[in-house]
Amino acid sequence: MLGDEKMNNHEAITIAQKLVAESKSVLVGSNDEAGFPNIKAMFNLEHNGLKEFWFSTNTSSKRVAQFRNNSKASLYFVDFNNFCGLLLIGTMEVLQDDASRKRLWREGFEMYYPQGVDDPDYSVLKFTAIRGNIYHQLQNISFEL
Amino acid sequence: MLGDEKMNNHEAITIAQKLVAESKSVLVGSNDEAGFPNIKAMFNLEHNGLKEFWFSTNTSSKRVAQFRNNSKASLYFVDFNNFCGLLLIGTMEVLQDDASRKRLWREGFEMYYPQGVDDPDYSVLKFTAIRGNIYHQLQNISFEL
Repeated sequence: MLGDEKMNNHEAITIAQKLVAESKSVLVGSNDEAGFPNIKAMFNLEHNGLKEFWFSTNTSSKRVAQFRNNSKASLYFVDFNNFCGLLLIGTMEVLQDDASRKRLWREGFEMYYPQGVDDPDYSVLKFTAIRGNIYHQLQNISFEL
Repeated sequence: MLGDEKMNNHEAITIAQKLVAESKSVLVGSNDEAGFPNIKAMFNLEHNGLKEFWFSTNTSSKRVAQFRNNSKASLYFVDFNNFCGLLLIGTMEVLQDDASRKRLWREGFEMYYPQGVDDPDYSVLKFTAIRGNIYHQLQNISFEL
């Protein structure tokens, strides 16, 4: 993009994909039992484009309880230095099947799940996006996913 | 804190205050009309301890519409490099009185509000915290505010 040109949908998606690729962490939005929006940083472990994202978490965590109660979720990728932010709106599933847990397991996860890949306190969260919005250079573009 | 010692409430608040003081930006959580949690990065402009925070925004923005419809809000301060995150849960008010707008006005705000401090598209958001949770060194501590 140059000067005052308006970002188009294709450019917005390209900027969003680049931001996701460069982000080691992402902010995950949920709702607690009283309906307050909650936010937590999580590792951006694995994704399929802008549509599906997978995270690891403790089964006993607040986030698992919140998503079991209300699957409405969001992800926010941010580059504070370049005033660029990507909001994805969607739903979150809590998975505990062996395939999902093995697929997402990373070296060092024993720090969080001492019993390893079969630790009952190890769960996988799967986010599926419905739509997105990117803020970049003072412009907002919304898109369906 | 040293080694495996459990962080106490006083230490948690001290770490939280330091994180807020060092944060130029903060993630602001809201709920949209369909009940999905939304997240947006905003400048951490002014605050009173961990209890009250003020932000500037466009009156025409999605966030203003969301908070007018549902005042439940959260703030999340994060230090990605040190795996430290502070979640504050509370409520958000939309203010447009002259005193609030003048108090929060900063050099360069003409970029967002071309008509200056009296621009009808310039609003102030005031967040009031109810409780907080800090994540630091694999520990979670919750506290009332």
